[in-house]
Amino acid sequence: MAPNLESFYKTVDANADHFIDRLRNAVAIPSVSAEDARRPDVVQMGMFLKEQLEALGAHMEARPLGKQPGKEHLELPPAIVGRYPAKKDDSKRTILVYGHYDVQPANLSDGWNTEPFKLSIDDKGRMFGRGSTDDKGPVLGWVNVIESHQKAGIDFPVNLLMCFEGMEEYGSEGLDDFIIAECKPGKFFADADAVCISDNYWLGTEKPCLTYGLRGCSYYSIEISGPGQDLHSGVFGGTAQEPMTDLVRVMGSLVDTNGKIQIPGIYELVAPLSKEEQGLYENIAFTMDNLYESLGSTTGIFDKKEETLMGRWRYPSLSLHGVEGAFSAPGAKTVIPAKVVGKFSIRTVPDMEPHEVDSLVYSYVQKQFEKLGSKNKMKCYLQHSGKWWVASPKHWNFTAAARAVEEVWHVKPDLTREGGSIPVTLTFEQATGKNVLLLPMGSSTDAAHSINEKLDRRNYIEGIKLLGAYLFHVAEEPME
Amino acid sequence: MAPNLESFYKTVDANADHFIDRLRNAVAIPSVSAEDARRPDVVQMGMFLKEQLEALGAHMEARPLGKQPGKEHLELPPAIVGRYPAKKDDSKRTILVYGHYDVQPANLSDGWNTEPFKLSIDDKGRMFGRGSTDDKGPVLGWVNVIESHQKAGIDFPVNLLMCFEGMEEYGSEGLDDFIIAECKPGKFFADADAVCISDNYWLGTEKPCLTYGLRGCSYYSIEISGPGQDLHSGVFGGTAQEPMTDLVRVMGSLVDTNGKIQIPGIYELVAPLSKEEQGLYENIAFTMDNLYESLGSTTGIFDKKEETLMGRWRYPSLSLHGVEGAFSAPGAKTVIPAKVVGKFSIRTVPDMEPHEVDSLVYSYVQKQFEKLGSKNKMKCYLQHSGKWWVASPKHWNFTAAARAVEEVWHVKPDLTREGGSIPVTLTFEQATGKNVLLLPMGSSTDAAHSINEKLDRRNYIEGIKLLGAYLFHVAEEPME
Repeated sequence: MAPNLESFYKTVDANADHFIDRLRNAVAIPSVSAEDARRPDVVQMGMFLKEQLEALGAHMEARPLGKQPGKEHLELPPAIVGRYPAKKDDSKRTILVYGHYDVQPANLSDGWNTEPFKLSIDDKGRMFGRGSTDDKGPVLGWVNVIESHQKAGIDFPVNLLMCFEGMEEYGSEGLDDFIIAECKPGKFFADADAVCISDNYWLGTEKPCLTYGLRGCSYYSIEISGPGQDLHSGVFGGTAQEPMTDLVRVMGSLVDTNGKIQIPGIYELVAPLSKEEQGLYENIAFTMDNLYESLGSTTGIFDKKEETLMGRWRYPSLSLHGVEGAFSAPGAKTVIPAKVVGKFSIRTVPDMEPHEVDSLVYSYVQKQFEKLGSKNKMKCYLQHSGKWWVASPKHWNFTAAARAVEEVWHVKPDLTREGGSIPVTLTFEQATGKNVLLLPMGSSTDAAHSINEKLDRRNYIEGIKLLGAYLFHVAEEPME
Repeated sequence: MAPNLESFYKTVDANADHFIDRLRNAVAIPSVSAEDARRPDVVQMGMFLKEQLEALGAHMEARPLGKQPGKEHLELPPAIVGRYPAKKDDSKRTILVYGHYDVQPANLSDGWNTEPFKLSIDDKGRMFGRGSTDDKGPVLGWVNVIESHQKAGIDFPVNLLMCFEGMEEYGSEGLDDFIIAECKPGKFFADADAVCISDNYWLGTEKPCLTYGLRGCSYYSIEISGPGQDLHSGVFGGTAQEPMTDLVRVMGSLVDTNGKIQIPGIYELVAPLSKEEQGLYENIAFTMDNLYESLGSTTGIFDKKEETLMGRWRYPSLSLHGVEGAFSAPGAKTVIPAKVVGKFSIRTVPDMEPHEVDSLVYSYVQKQFEKLGSKNKMKCYLQHSGKWWVASPKHWNFTAAARAVEEVWHVKPDLTREGGSIPVTLTFEQATGKNVLLLPMGSSTDAAHSINEKLDRRNYIEGIKLLGAYLFHVAEEPME
């Protein structure tokens, strides 16, 4: 092992408690981007990050992204961009890293076992807290890598460009245009040679992976309205056509219990499965027990791991998320909701073009609604859409990361795709024209977006080593 | 007209502004029984009512009803009971009146045009405010009747027993046992000769009615659960069976757009329509335009008033109220909810026995769920149930009320049934063994339970006269 790396690893271990304190401070800031009232907390979290990096000598900027579309009273949280070392060393490669400092909503009453915005570490080293794994742990990973190099007294191997946003959990409002503008010649991100994003998870709990593909996501609303206001079901039940009745019938026609999408034409858009691809899945370190553990149940669709991986990575899925406007509290309310909005999304894969998916959805939903013969009004529309992404895992960006994994975790990483969407991945690829790598820190049981989100101490500390080792190797890897 | 009544009517008119102030003060107390945090406000409203009546010389008691079942940290609001005059006059009849001082939830953000807990009177005399018509206006009606008799210096015609509760909008917890106990010999309500409840509405906006029948209500939950916690739809979509998919399919099988209940056997429980009954509906002062006005749209099921009235009064209906546990906020959230609870209720009519309805519901829902072949778990259960009620409209209690309507409104009232449930009606009938009359104050456009609930000034002031005239006539009506 290179002496520099050895010294770096030791420094990370020696500062582990300090790095956990840093994560504790970050988790304590409830930077929920979806809640208007939390916007100041999101901004505060951005400032926290900026200050931490400035204290280490990085050049940092908080870049305004304007007003929030549709909520013009709200300023979007800034993009926190930075460069380390502050002055570019032209003899070194430039790596652009991305992460986000906002988090999903969380309330103790949702069923958390501990206060969501207080990092709570149990005796197994599980560090519970909203944002621990998604994405404050990985973002602070880069901060910790810089600090560890300084404390170890070793040269930083690359020019690091940083892009941290505060709206990832709410559709990355405003970020795409910003990235595209800043990747142009002479701008902040112009010199990037490759991109690394740490905002996803291992497939299981033991074996690291490098991720080269993501599904896209097209998110739709079906709005059905009739009466002028909510009605009393005693007075109007049996005399009025009820929007909720129509909505559940339309929603019920979209997908079946086994996840089969009922919209004609959807599967015809999917790239066919080649023999070569078919063979890839059986070698992936993943078992049905991994699924069941992360699911917290055995209510999977498939019994085999290969089908399960394909269901997650390379086939589309449709999920019904909920209904806005209907009665949603505990207890009983005898209301006939006047206007209800059903929410669902389709995870898309190669070669599904989002606008083709939209057309199939609109036409099918329209037909299903017409079948009901209802006098109510129906509108189906797209809330947001992000395309799928697939990169080349043979690029030097990936081989450098693979070396880093082998050194830190003593195992060859799986090359995986992901079921989730990180739309910014595609934006970075298109804006920089460079290879993009997804290098996860957390594991499959981290429960991102759920109650009791956590990051294992081991994944955090070894993850810091991994990010450092990646920068070391990406600086040295021959370009092919 | 009897001179006493004439003097009473004049006094009511002369004190109209004072009575409206009293309603304003009551509306300002947000006595929402469904919200735990508002419990002190509910109690405060009970005390307000008690003090108002005590100031008029009534004997009042606040009777504790114990802890709230399932929420043992909460004390139920008291039943406010009273007697006026404080000392019984054995030469007079005794009339027991009931109302409730709690209200439905209301927030400005629900879409109210005015602050829901501030009485706002527009230039058409519409008095907007939560509880204005349901049921603070009618309850204060009795207070105003007493005060008007005193101010007019006329003898009060009956012994008035009062029962005002604070949990009507949340299932009247604890009240049934209380009423049954207090109707026993020697107890507070033992001497009632008849019962009058003012907690419903005219069928339209112009013609008063007396109500002799109500539908019952059986409220059910369908709970479907699978995963151990909410999941990210990107990571798990296409690999897990989703409870929400199953739920909308089961809910979608319960009722169609035209309100036809799909549960086999339900309509077989309904009393057949006789020739005599069939003729009743065409004479009722009700038009399809009345329906459309109160609906705020023309999305009715039937085009004819007779079918519409029968759909509301004498046939069962099934409404889907909403889903608990799914995403219900504005915007987009890519969650797969782990446990969802669908809420629906069936309005029941003669001769449907609630336990027979339960059996049909459970067995049908179970079959629908089994058809899905899902690994998720399903439970269907009753949240609460209240039976339908039908009284004799030929009783002296009704003929007295009919005279009062003719005097105050100069028109014969329609004899109507109601689609909604007021379970306490049946309890009073069974506990007292006496005739129960429903004597509405508000009109069909009052939007009880909805945003912009209101009571028209005219209905309030003439309604006070009506309650007084009813007491006058009920004291004199020959018993048959």
